[in-house]
Amino acid sequence: MASQMGLLEQTVAAIHPVDIEAARIADARLNSLTKPRGSLGYLEELVRRYAAIRHDGSARKGRGAIAAFVADHGIAEEGVSAFPKSVTLEMLRNIADGGAAISVLAKRFGYDLRVFDMGVETDSSMNPFSGVTYRRIGPGTRNFLKGAAMTRDEARRAVETGIEVARDLSSSGATLIGIGEMGIANSTSAAAVLSAATGIVPVRLAGHGTGIDNTGFKRKVDVIEGALQRHCDALTDGLGILATVGGFEIAAMTGVCLGGAAENVAVVVDGFIATAAAAAAERISPGITEHLFFGHRSAEGGHREALEVLHARPILDFEMRLGEGTGAALAMSAIESALDLFHQMATFQSAGVSEKIR
Amino acid sequence: MASQMGLLEQTVAAIHPVDIEAARIADARLNSLTKPRGSLGYLEELVRRYAAIRHDGSARKGRGAIAAFVADHGIAEEGVSAFPKSVTLEMLRNIADGGAAISVLAKRFGYDLRVFDMGVETDSSMNPFSGVTYRRIGPGTRNFLKGAAMTRDEARRAVETGIEVARDLSSSGATLIGIGEMGIANSTSAAAVLSAATGIVPVRLAGHGTGIDNTGFKRKVDVIEGALQRHCDALTDGLGILATVGGFEIAAMTGVCLGGAAENVAVVVDGFIATAAAAAAERISPGITEHLFFGHRSAEGGHREALEVLHARPILDFEMRLGEGTGAALAMSAIESALDLFHQMATFQSAGVSEKIR
Repeated sequence: MASQMGLLEQTVAAIHPVDIEAARIADARLNSLTKPRGSLGYLEELVRRYAAIRHDGSARKGRGAIAAFVADHGIAEEGVSAFPKSVTLEMLRNIADGGAAISVLAKRFGYDLRVFDMGVETDSSMNPFSGVTYRRIGPGTRNFLKGAAMTRDEARRAVETGIEVARDLSSSGATLIGIGEMGIANSTSAAAVLSAATGIVPVRLAGHGTGIDNTGFKRKVDVIEGALQRHCDALTDGLGILATVGGFEIAAMTGVCLGGAAENVAVVVDGFIATAAAAAAERISPGITEHLFFGHRSAEGGHREALEVLHARPILDFEMRLGEGTGAALAMSAIESALDLFHQMATFQSAGVSEKIR
Repeated sequence: MASQMGLLEQTVAAIHPVDIEAARIADARLNSLTKPRGSLGYLEELVRRYAAIRHDGSARKGRGAIAAFVADHGIAEEGVSAFPKSVTLEMLRNIADGGAAISVLAKRFGYDLRVFDMGVETDSSMNPFSGVTYRRIGPGTRNFLKGAAMTRDEARRAVETGIEVARDLSSSGATLIGIGEMGIANSTSAAAVLSAATGIVPVRLAGHGTGIDNTGFKRKVDVIEGALQRHCDALTDGLGILATVGGFEIAAMTGVCLGGAAENVAVVVDGFIATAAAAAAERISPGITEHLFFGHRSAEGGHREALEVLHARPILDFEMRLGEGTGAALAMSAIESALDLFHQMATFQSAGVSEKIR
């Protein structure tokens, strides 16, 4: 059993509100740039929020990184996914080899891609895949229809792994961290976590994941409802929710949200699964969504409603439902575009451009 | 007077429908990539559309370019803009000097930025700004509340300039061309062009432009309504609309739409003003919007409704209203991201990833 004042508690204690004054300083500069006031629209809000999260009115740009966590799920044995469980391992290798969507986007944008095996069923660490960091909690979670997905201690270790990842990336100069995941059946775990964390009923949250048919979808909803009833008493706090119906990769992303906030690093949440991790983080440290960007609105089931409950405005809406951090990576590029405009545009004064007259 | 079989007519005659078979070939490859089918959402549609526009099932990437056209408007003397007319010249220099928003974005994304003086009031061509190409039709348009903004021949010359720009850029390897503009009072001209081209009433199209107050807004609507009534008989065709209430930069963008379509180059329309140019192009060559991408939904007045009438889905929605091609540039980056995914992702076969089972 980990100490009650372990890394998790220390991290939560180190989270301070975002810096409204930094946002105000950034806003003053935005209004001095050679453009009609407010005409960069939501890009200006991204700059103000970045400044507030970073506690830095100058909104200095740093490195971008993607932390992608991969793990298996015992619940897959209930037939809730369109793909076989073996795909988790195959995709772990594909991400590391550069063939996955997130590999392509990280390369395109120059982001540092870190891939973590948090607990794929087959342990490849003896013949490790190049580019994968092994932080395995176990050989996948257990089937949460039959018992808890993991112990509370395992959940803590997974969360603390995410906290450490955020710290490491921050130390290496990252100021924007996108979180992503891969794990067959994890949209079922994510819907269960989101339902437990937000109170939205499962049938409104579940989606077709990687492309399951209608029979499979009904089974998925039944599985989530059954699990939430069965484990009702264990779902009273964020860590309990993650332990009972979560996944190792989901818990790790929760950790990055917490660790990033403690480090004043801007974490960019990907789609449906990552939003479940953020919702769990909000249960652990209420108000943490102020520190987060939500990269995109996923086409998956109830992502729209989940974002509304979290008062989160997604940056992009491309109807993607791929995960891996792909929506986060595209959104990070939009944030960086906004920061480039902020830093590189001329001011009315420097360019000798006349100001508004009426 | 230009010949009735001049460059404009030759260009319109050279426009062929987009290639549905190329889209189908691209779609087959999209379905072979290591991702759930359709999970890249709208990015997949961007690839299919790019392939169809280019008549190229392999959707080969080329260079990206931004063509930004700058001109003054006689209608500015009616007090329809929040900024003085001198800003057009000042911003022409600022764009060329690298201080404008489009300069920053073009640099960020590596796009070839071409800036054209189509008719700024003050002629700077004797001491030319470095980086500006002078294709002046005149020292700004005339006040269209008093007479036509330009002659029909001037409109033709401006459109043909845009056609030549599209040809030149295509010859130099551009396969994606973003169109943008700058010109004090041009949101008034654009609203008039859009109203004449689509039938949407002015009060639903006009917006606050660079930030005019409510009194100015009412004046703007009155000006547009007055002009459309006065010139009713001259607004029966695309070229007539451009000549009567348009602008040199708007007509040039219409030309890029036409010239791009004839060259199988994908033109990315920016916001409200560029959409007016596209609407005029649609009147000149019906169906041309199939060849265009619409970069973003602007926060300006009736852009949403104008896009709906053109059956156009904007790629981004950042509530921007800056012009210059800024929304187009950001959208081009999204299209290029989609193309990188298309070309660089592994297939199920190449990566040894198992396929769907249910």
